[in-house]
Amino acid sequence: MKVVVLAGGVGGARFLLGVKSALGLPATGPAPEGAEHSVTAIVNTGDDVWMHGLRVCPDLDTCMYTLGGGVATERGWGHAGETWTVSAELAAYGAEPTWFALGDKDIATHLVRTRMLRAGYPLSEVTAALCQRWQPGVRLLPMTDERVETHVVIDDPDNPDQHKAVHFQEWWARYKASLPAHSIVPVGSEEAAPAAGLLDAIAEADVVLLAPSNPVVSIGTVLAIPGTVEAIRSARAAVVGLSPIVGNKPVRGMADACLAAIGVESSAEAVGRHYGSRAHSDTGILDGWLIAEGESADVPGVEVRDIPLMMSDVPATAAMARTAIAMAGCRVD
Amino acid sequence: MKVVVLAGGVGGARFLLGVKSALGLPATGPAPEGAEHSVTAIVNTGDDVWMHGLRVCPDLDTCMYTLGGGVATERGWGHAGETWTVSAELAAYGAEPTWFALGDKDIATHLVRTRMLRAGYPLSEVTAALCQRWQPGVRLLPMTDERVETHVVIDDPDNPDQHKAVHFQEWWARYKASLPAHSIVPVGSEEAAPAAGLLDAIAEADVVLLAPSNPVVSIGTVLAIPGTVEAIRSARAAVVGLSPIVGNKPVRGMADACLAAIGVESSAEAVGRHYGSRAHSDTGILDGWLIAEGESADVPGVEVRDIPLMMSDVPATAAMARTAIAMAGCRVD
Repeated sequence: MKVVVLAGGVGGARFLLGVKSALGLPATGPAPEGAEHSVTAIVNTGDDVWMHGLRVCPDLDTCMYTLGGGVATERGWGHAGETWTVSAELAAYGAEPTWFALGDKDIATHLVRTRMLRAGYPLSEVTAALCQRWQPGVRLLPMTDERVETHVVIDDPDNPDQHKAVHFQEWWARYKASLPAHSIVPVGSEEAAPAAGLLDAIAEADVVLLAPSNPVVSIGTVLAIPGTVEAIRSARAAVVGLSPIVGNKPVRGMADACLAAIGVESSAEAVGRHYGSRAHSDTGILDGWLIAEGESADVPGVEVRDIPLMMSDVPATAAMARTAIAMAGCRVD
Repeated sequence: MKVVVLAGGVGGARFLLGVKSALGLPATGPAPEGAEHSVTAIVNTGDDVWMHGLRVCPDLDTCMYTLGGGVATERGWGHAGETWTVSAELAAYGAEPTWFALGDKDIATHLVRTRMLRAGYPLSEVTAALCQRWQPGVRLLPMTDERVETHVVIDDPDNPDQHKAVHFQEWWARYKASLPAHSIVPVGSEEAAPAAGLLDAIAEADVVLLAPSNPVVSIGTVLAIPGTVEAIRSARAAVVGLSPIVGNKPVRGMADACLAAIGVESSAEAVGRHYGSRAHSDTGILDGWLIAEGESADVPGVEVRDIPLMMSDVPATAAMARTAIAMAGCRVD
């Protein structure tokens, strides 16, 4: 079975652990040779940023480290046993920005990536090269090989009468999404194309899943690349999403602040309607929508089921993935 | 008094400590406001190299860290309390080369420099910016703002019948200069120009000193930049050099292997003759030549004196610098 998962960072990475486990693959590490099932993750790169001259791809790296068994588990991102010597030195130089600390081990990843990108390799090939070391056991595909960066329009903190567009990372990591977003724009997406192999992966998939990632700045950004929604809508596989909103709040992160910016209520129903029905609309992508146990949601044209939806550990996440795969009409033993 | 010193890495940096001390300046750290004397160091950049996408300037950094009080004193280069996390990770990725380890703190310097260079700042301005933090108390000028890299022609280790040109760092750090050098070439020097302010510094100097640095790959490379020898020859200041060869051996490093490559004997006399007399030749640059106590050297047209020539500590080095300054006809109290 070929499973395609649209994913962001920490939530996406944890969901992928469960998908692998549901398919009988080891949650971390490589798939056994000749494995019957395979997973392709289409990962948001709108959070990517140039930082101190290095190309940083937070969501790809979070997926790679998590699935490769090297993530700092309690934090959810970055390396286990990380140190911060380089960042302290950069601060001693007064090198801006200081609100985005790069871990020492992480910097090695960014050095390898930046060098390869400057040598002309597309991000998808760079990611494959990095995964040679990490062996995540899934194919990690960036949503695009081109530069797309999510920007957030806020009130200028230094000039309250004026609006200002900042990189998503500045809004997220520096301001903790505390400044209301007037709009969120994936800059460059209109001219971007899906990464090589991405549309084929969707076309050949037996199941397409939307991880319970941020519907605006993770899944939404992936969907902003021209051709991606059309490919999902015309896929032969059924498409099932998992709500990142439980009890009208994001399970993790600040998705509610992002949803507010695009005028969508922070509820499983509203997010399901935002994704829309593949059958009953011209732009929707869902056949099925999984929401938290005990909740209800009316999403016209979409099958809705409530199930335990907390990714508290790999078995709980695998159960979610199994339900999603079954809802898509497939079955794993 | 304005003192100009041509310098390489470890030896040059240590000599500069002595020059500062001889002038009544604190050996490390900034010069007091309104100080009577000033030092400009013209530093070899032929060892500079792109490493993992970072621009590394070993001699400039050694001078900056040493004079800024941050060097690993026993090693002579790199940071005190350095760690090597990033390099270990790069090796885990299989990123080549693995024979040149970058320290974590050092990497911060290279990140700041690389980012500024890519933004279009010349190396001289980048160096001045880095020195804002380190406050070396001397003006550190790269020999040129352009890319000049010393290459060494050796027998190809994989193909003994063929010659191969490698970067100086590969010959020095990887092979420890153990492979005989057929020639040593400062690639790019012919088209390079002295860094902004360099010729003026020489013209305005009261004393010009050649540090006891490698005469081929440090001082020799500085002198290879068109216009530099002419500026030294026409300087109003006297020019005094200090021999890096004591007892026919380099005090530190592998200058003998470099001298062999250019057909110069490893002796204080031969190196003095190689630099040549400003008065008695058309290309020479020396007025005075300091050699080790008890040795003799006949360098036509050059005043030679033998003095204790081991930079064992700052006072011993300051005594050497004082003698050199006095030989140049100046005097510090």
